[in-house]
Amino acid sequence: MMTLINGLQTEHIRVFDRGLLYGDGVFRTMLVKAGRLLCWQRHYEKLRGDCAAIGIECPSREILTEEISEAIKETPDCVLKAIVTRGEGQRGYAVQQGAMPTRILIASPIPQYPSSHYSEGIRLHLCKTRLALQPSLAGIKHLNRLENILARQEWSDPEITEGLMLDMKGNVIEGTMSNLFLLQGDTLYTPDLGDCGVAGMQRARIMEMAGRLGMAVKVEKLALARVYAADEMVLCNSVIGAWQVRELAEKIWSTGGLAMRLRSFLDDDGY
Amino acid sequence: MMTLINGLQTEHIRVFDRGLLYGDGVFRTMLVKAGRLLCWQRHYEKLRGDCAAIGIECPSREILTEEISEAIKETPDCVLKAIVTRGEGQRGYAVQQGAMPTRILIASPIPQYPSSHYSEGIRLHLCKTRLALQPSLAGIKHLNRLENILARQEWSDPEITEGLMLDMKGNVIEGTMSNLFLLQGDTLYTPDLGDCGVAGMQRARIMEMAGRLGMAVKVEKLALARVYAADEMVLCNSVIGAWQVRELAEKIWSTGGLAMRLRSFLDDDGY
Repeated sequence: MMTLINGLQTEHIRVFDRGLLYGDGVFRTMLVKAGRLLCWQRHYEKLRGDCAAIGIECPSREILTEEISEAIKETPDCVLKAIVTRGEGQRGYAVQQGAMPTRILIASPIPQYPSSHYSEGIRLHLCKTRLALQPSLAGIKHLNRLENILARQEWSDPEITEGLMLDMKGNVIEGTMSNLFLLQGDTLYTPDLGDCGVAGMQRARIMEMAGRLGMAVKVEKLALARVYAADEMVLCNSVIGAWQVRELAEKIWSTGGLAMRLRSFLDDDGY
Repeated sequence: MMTLINGLQTEHIRVFDRGLLYGDGVFRTMLVKAGRLLCWQRHYEKLRGDCAAIGIECPSREILTEEISEAIKETPDCVLKAIVTRGEGQRGYAVQQGAMPTRILIASPIPQYPSSHYSEGIRLHLCKTRLALQPSLAGIKHLNRLENILARQEWSDPEITEGLMLDMKGNVIEGTMSNLFLLQGDTLYTPDLGDCGVAGMQRARIMEMAGRLGMAVKVEKLALARVYAADEMVLCNSVIGAWQVRELAEKIWSTGGLAMRLRSFLDDDGY
């Protein structure tokens, strides 16, 4: 475990940081394998876009690249979380001109998930906590994550791996920590995230590569009934790759091959 | 300026705190005058309720009272911010059993607002940023404050003191840092906060004391037209007390006396 804050090895941040006071920041969760940060170029573009969306000046790629090398030098295989906050300011919500963003890097061990998550798939909880509709923040991976936390508190059964979240209108949006795809015939469907949800990077990669796997991709509003009607369902994020969903409420899917096909491309295709 | 974290005088918090990682916590902003924390009993009850609403075990009143005495001992007149986060946990949204909440106290100077804010009232910006509807978090003063920050970024004109926020349905909810009341005849109206917004403590006090001022109080869904039709409009929070609204968009109110009447009661009535 190593943490760097603005390039310095420390585990402590000042309490005046707006990341703490208001959740005023964005983050990325990334995978490091054999000393190589997977998909860094894409992650940086997304980080920059998320910063811009809430008016934070993103640190340069050069400085982050250099600090990441330092953060992962002792752990060639790790999860690297990169947080950029708006930094410090005077008391209150107003943003001061010239605020200096805070760069936080946290390298931690890769979680060891049961191999059955990959071979057989996982069981989902259907969350009661709904995602609020907020187009101004939709898609952004920001530090305001209380909805995800409330949703994750809904189950403690260790046999359940992830929770499926709907929005206030009842549309299916995402897992608490993952994006989702439905396969119906030869078409992959993934929820429209224009009103809420996090537009993850593995989701973007899967959308791009689907053509090469012989599948069309459609981004739509998806009612829950569409999930139950799907031939296969898969969850994805940068740490897990892709998992097949085996069970949700009353519905049980026979083991499909979609997650495995996606993983082979996701693994090969990192840059 | 003094900061105490879990009773220790330090300005630094660990980056693994869920307050930073997810905005997983709640807070109070309170006024200390002549060494006395105003309305502490009420503030504590609200803090405890907000903690309970998201499943955080609130620190005891005794320990907070003791630590507050320490935090304000050198600044008999100050703003005291008290934050309670869920503390640290393993990576991910899941809450571990027995997590130890973090107590953060920040004593800072009382902001010096222009005296005209009290004598003549203030000018409001009508925010384009809308508050999302999220009943699970409505009313709670939690650390997920990006909506307020986006709203506050909408204006930089120093003549404008505060922004008026509507919800996604167009109902009037609050200021970016204050609650609001409309006076129409002998009735005070304040927005229903069942879907979004922060239910502040001064709002609760004003609702309680209105009867003694000869006014009825109604909590309602309020369309923007109700604001323009109001005889008077007032904003409140624990630091400012109450301010008359003088101007919003095209509307100009002649100077009313409501804020002054409310302030005389708010000042007298603290416990």
